[in-house]
Amino acid sequence: MKKHVIEMIKKRGVNMTDIAEIVFEMQKGYLPITLEMCLEVVESVLAKREVQNAVMTGIALDIAAETRQIEEPLLSMLLADEPLYGVDEILALSITNIYGSIAFTNFGYIDKLKVGVLTKLNQHRDVQCNTFLDDLVAAVASAACSKLAHGFDKKNKKVQEDD
Amino acid sequence: MKKHVIEMIKKRGVNMTDIAEIVFEMQKGYLPITLEMCLEVVESVLAKREVQNAVMTGIALDIAAETRQIEEPLLSMLLADEPLYGVDEILALSITNIYGSIAFTNFGYIDKLKVGVLTKLNQHRDVQCNTFLDDLVAAVASAACSKLAHGFDKKNKKVQEDD
Amino acid sequence: MKKHVIEMIKKRGVNMTDIAEIVFEMQKGYLPITLEMCLEVVESVLAKREVQNAVMTGIALDIAAETRQIEEPLLSMLLADEPLYGVDEILALSITNIYGSIAFTNFGYIDKLKVGVLTKLNQHRDVQCNTFLDDLVAAVASAACSKLAHGFDKKNKKVQEDD
Amino acid sequence: MKKHVIEMIKKRGVNMTDIAEIVFEMQKGYLPITLEMCLEVVESVLAKREVQNAVMTGIALDIAAETRQIEEPLLSMLLADEPLYGVDEILALSITNIYGSIAFTNFGYIDKLKVGVLTKLNQHRDVQCNTFLDDLVAAVASAACSKLAHGFDKKNKKVQEDD
Repeated sequence: MKKHVIEMIKKRGVNMTDIAEIVFEMQKGYLPITLEMCLEVVESVLAKREVQNAVMTGIALDIAAETRQIEEPLLSMLLADEPLYGVDEILALSITNIYGSIAFTNFGYIDKLKVGVLTKLNQHRDVQCNTFLDDLVAAVASAACSKLAHGFDKKNKKVQEDD
Repeated sequence: MKKHVIEMIKKRGVNMTDIAEIVFEMQKGYLPITLEMCLEVVESVLAKREVQNAVMTGIALDIAAETRQIEEPLLSMLLADEPLYGVDEILALSITNIYGSIAFTNFGYIDKLKVGVLTKLNQHRDVQCNTFLDDLVAAVASAACSKLAHGFDKKNKKVQEDD
Repeated sequence: MKKHVIEMIKKRGVNMTDIAEIVFEMQKGYLPITLEMCLEVVESVLAKREVQNAVMTGIALDIAAETRQIEEPLLSMLLADEPLYGVDEILALSITNIYGSIAFTNFGYIDKLKVGVLTKLNQHRDVQCNTFLDDLVAAVASAACSKLAHGFDKKNKKVQEDD
Repeated sequence: MKKHVIEMIKKRGVNMTDIAEIVFEMQKGYLPITLEMCLEVVESVLAKREVQNAVMTGIALDIAAETRQIEEPLLSMLLADEPLYGVDEILALSITNIYGSIAFTNFGYIDKLKVGVLTKLNQHRDVQCNTFLDDLVAAVASAACSKLAHGFDKKNKKVQEDD
């Protein structure tokens, strides 16, 4: 299942390293991490069933909007990423909630500043609908930041398993 | 927009009185209410934009599953209302969150005991996909319970506007 | 830290087996579990840092209310477990959120029906302030129900580690 | 009650205009607002009972920590604003949840960048415990941003009542 979800995200234009780079960017000032560690943590976030379900559902909605399989007025809201439509952030919040408050704070920051790949996703809106994808990517990155911060073992310089 | 959302819910087999009856059932032991008051409060919940967005998105997913416009493995999860798939409860939670903790507690109770119309929805799963609809109905009912409890003016026996 | 939190809960009158019994009661109809398995899962929930923080904070507030170290009007709300005061449920929600939607639904049910030890806690309100404790106990039990449901390995009849 | 809560916040060193300034800073790029409008919206957020309860509870915890009326190890966590302690963000989240996803995203940004008065609060940690206060201020400001964005009537250049 994890492979399937990673594949889905990739097909929508985002690689695991893109998400890992956001994590690295956010945490490098606090922890002696490498991009590889970030990649590992991102993949471990995507191994959680609830995260997979949120990602699959959000991407399904992006695709359904793109292929016009959704009725109006919801269709136009999704295609325009209407700022007052917040279900995308709600799915994101369901991911960050699992990882505690550091995930929650980072999400708002990453989402607002469009860190890393999020700038690209935001510009490619005419090509594909990324209404859910961008918030999901920000949420997975934030969750990974939180997992890193909670689980980093300073002595051995590696990430511990779930506390 | 409120009318459109009420119409969507109706097309899926649930009337506003069905939801009002859940609210009445839940609150009649605590407050001197009438079914009509409950109906009014249910409609006021459906006037909130965030509630409308959650309802429209959930029903869109139910319909997309029904018409097989969603890819596997998500499709089978939605059609089976797979217990470990929780995005339906997440959308519901986004509704109850707006109305505070009474909404939250009532939701679990209504959802687990399949109060009122929820029993019917649960039995008609072979006819249409109600994975999201049943949680959304439970959430709107719970939100209305909370609004009633917070806003009931005991002196004048009517529901106040938002506090 | 886990030991400290378990000790705190015990001092307030709730044993781990009390919580395990709620879990057993809720899940015995669905899974071939024993009370011992439930106890193990309850303890694993209390090993999570976010759960520990919510429990310690809630109990600190109960004690501060009891010893009148909180100013009015909050003091009276806490001592009366005022129904419209919802911060107790919010702390509970922060526990259930980590464990996904099954935790969320079970919480409302357990809390409303006052399953198991919760009836006792509710009656002893004149002796000590349990405004936070009862919701925290319900939340830990709900979280354990969710962990059981997600992680139960039907083949080997034991609970798996975090998925 | 609203007056009491505003007074409590003031006693802890934060004026309503301090919060309004954060809102103005965040929204001036999007909406033709004045500081006065922001002040009005901030006060309307503080008229909500759930917001008042979260604020009173958080400040009570800050004061209890300051006066050493909380046991260890929680006391040290609160005094140090320990990054892995997240109950402060949870109370904040309970405020932003009421106001939808714009509140949620803004919170992370405001909190991370320590916009406006938050910088001061962060520096005065040796004088008083602001572990909860800073997140509550950020949450009230974020909620006000969301209410402004949802309710701003472009034609009449004023903020509408709750939608």
